[in-house]
Amino acid sequence: MKRIYLDNAATTKVSKNAVEAMQPFFVEEYGNPSSIHSYGRTAHKALEYARKSIAEKVNAESEELIFTSGGTESNNLALIGCAYANSSRGKHIITSKIEHGSILEPCRFLEKNGFEITYVGVDEDGIINPQKISDAIREDTIMISIAHANNEVGTIQDIKSIGEIAREKNIVFHSDACQSFTKVPIDVVDQKIDLLTINSHKIHGPKGVGALYIRRGIKLNPHEMGGGHEKGLRSGTENVAGIIGFQVAVRQMDDAAVAKMKGRRDKLIKNIFEKIPYIKLNGHREKRLVNNVNITFKGIEGESLLLRLDAKGIAASTGSACSSASLEPSYVLLSMGLPAEWAHGSLRMTLSEEISDEDIDYVVESLIDEVGKLRAISPIAR
Amino acid sequence: MKRIYLDNAATTKVSKNAVEAMQPFFVEEYGNPSSIHSYGRTAHKALEYARKSIAEKVNAESEELIFTSGGTESNNLALIGCAYANSSRGKHIITSKIEHGSILEPCRFLEKNGFEITYVGVDEDGIINPQKISDAIREDTIMISIAHANNEVGTIQDIKSIGEIAREKNIVFHSDACQSFTKVPIDVVDQKIDLLTINSHKIHGPKGVGALYIRRGIKLNPHEMGGGHEKGLRSGTENVAGIIGFQVAVRQMDDAAVAKMKGRRDKLIKNIFEKIPYIKLNGHREKRLVNNVNITFKGIEGESLLLRLDAKGIAASTGSACSSASLEPSYVLLSMGLPAEWAHGSLRMTLSEEISDEDIDYVVESLIDEVGKLRAISPIAR
Repeated sequence: MKRIYLDNAATTKVSKNAVEAMQPFFVEEYGNPSSIHSYGRTAHKALEYARKSIAEKVNAESEELIFTSGGTESNNLALIGCAYANSSRGKHIITSKIEHGSILEPCRFLEKNGFEITYVGVDEDGIINPQKISDAIREDTIMISIAHANNEVGTIQDIKSIGEIAREKNIVFHSDACQSFTKVPIDVVDQKIDLLTINSHKIHGPKGVGALYIRRGIKLNPHEMGGGHEKGLRSGTENVAGIIGFQVAVRQMDDAAVAKMKGRRDKLIKNIFEKIPYIKLNGHREKRLVNNVNITFKGIEGESLLLRLDAKGIAASTGSACSSASLEPSYVLLSMGLPAEWAHGSLRMTLSEEISDEDIDYVVESLIDEVGKLRAISPIAR
Repeated sequence: MKRIYLDNAATTKVSKNAVEAMQPFFVEEYGNPSSIHSYGRTAHKALEYARKSIAEKVNAESEELIFTSGGTESNNLALIGCAYANSSRGKHIITSKIEHGSILEPCRFLEKNGFEITYVGVDEDGIINPQKISDAIREDTIMISIAHANNEVGTIQDIKSIGEIAREKNIVFHSDACQSFTKVPIDVVDQKIDLLTINSHKIHGPKGVGALYIRRGIKLNPHEMGGGHEKGLRSGTENVAGIIGFQVAVRQMDDAAVAKMKGRRDKLIKNIFEKIPYIKLNGHREKRLVNNVNITFKGIEGESLLLRLDAKGIAASTGSACSSASLEPSYVLLSMGLPAEWAHGSLRMTLSEEISDEDIDYVVESLIDEVGKLRAISPIAR
């Protein structure tokens, strides 16, 4: 059976080049980067090469990047580490209602521990108005955390404006860029970002690897404590092979790959809208990740559609993989003002550059077929 | 040049079988275990297979094992997670003076946050007398954390006796088994262990993967917060490929491999003691990890010896890799009563089963040569 993977916002296939680059670090140069013998020095050199290469991608210095086990850990370190390191200046943090769980859960933890959080709302396209951030700032605001692009609907925020607002008030600005990294240009200097979360497994690198950019001078409390690795902020032997795979993945995503995905995305949206009635595109039409298609098919359950597509070899999602076991409608869609019954009918398809025109034709045909069948048996379909 | 890797306590080569087993999860079955489509279900199945297989190795149930990014994270989760989840019962914790940094640093963090820690001492062989643990217990003691085997000198503790003492008093018993796992039998039921840290990269699995056994009913606060993975205690997409590599590594270490290492270790110790005078074996002679040789060569600097051996292709260590950049003498050796100048002259050689008899001959010859040269130029050598 044909298999088409359209869940690249959940995780991605590791690229051939990344897999190959990792191999020597499993079986030949397997030293611990902290060891001072030749095995250790080779591992250390590889680690620092990867650090420099990845830092450059966002216009950061090597010394400003630390490696972690992934986006969730980077977000936890950024939120909790910054909150406690700066609590003498204030205990108020600003974020949004549509952040990923790895931002919202640390925020809830901080709320239980004496911090106050303002959750800024979004418009019907999922856009956060920078003015709302500005209005939420108080004397005791110490941090603003806004994702660069939303994981469900792909809406891209104006992080430069938010960064400028934060810098002017001397407030730390963190952005979770797990979904946008390598797909949308990021320049931590120009966009005035203080903390930036990036990760590997969303961009065709291995799982279990991420990084946090920490602008020089920004204070954080450590999250993993021990041997003092990664500037004492993230102890634990560095995952050298994984980090090398991450580096190769970062360098592989170029303008051509991005343009190719954008073309396929637009074709997929266009064809679905031409062939299937009573649907709605969720997220902003233009300010949108190049690989994200999120559509509500009115009158049906997204879950049922997902399973029928799966039976035809098409892997999609109804929301984020992290909450896919949940039956609750997406809080992201609800925050954008979508009625709960429509939110239930949403499907997220996130492309990679491997998706061909033929794949898109097959997906559209399958959608016409399955949406039609589901609507025929649905009591709520009009 | 011949290369002999004798730093397997710092990290290990990934076994060929583990590397091979990981490959399909990079490029074919790369789904996110939380996704409900076929890619996700396959990844989930692999994850749960690995969980069951690894849990069985320590006589635990699948549901009692969660995956983490490594030993440091497991130790942080165990210490800090247990302390805060049980703080209403008391704020006193017992550990030892020779624990790894990933235990001692969380303990220092807890001390700054209202907890009290008792650091039990060790005898000249690095043995912790269970009676000392028993004597340190107070009304408000909530946790005891003692490593199964020490990372520097390889001394194995009587964790069953400590486990029995803890269970009788209803105190949570955590053991860091990063060094002993697969080399010394562990049975969490028989040894009355409540929390057990194990990891992958010390046993020929990949870096960046570990696990924490959590006995049913033991309460922990989460360490990584987000999508609610791993029973809500460790959010973040699971490193499926790495976990599969870990599982294969666990299953590969059998009695024959352990017996082989023990034989080589004993030969190495015997030959060094026959050929080189004024030396001392650090750690207990019998209650000792099968791959650990830690020797003080009086009158020389361990660091100098390490670099000279490295020039001959032999990779060893003066202590733990985590603190190898430090010039301080080992706190483990000092806690065992070794004078500081002797502690400075210590060398740790940790074997794998790949070490041959010829390798050992070469190492002993190199040691005779280099120790002789260093003593000839040393002002403090007798």
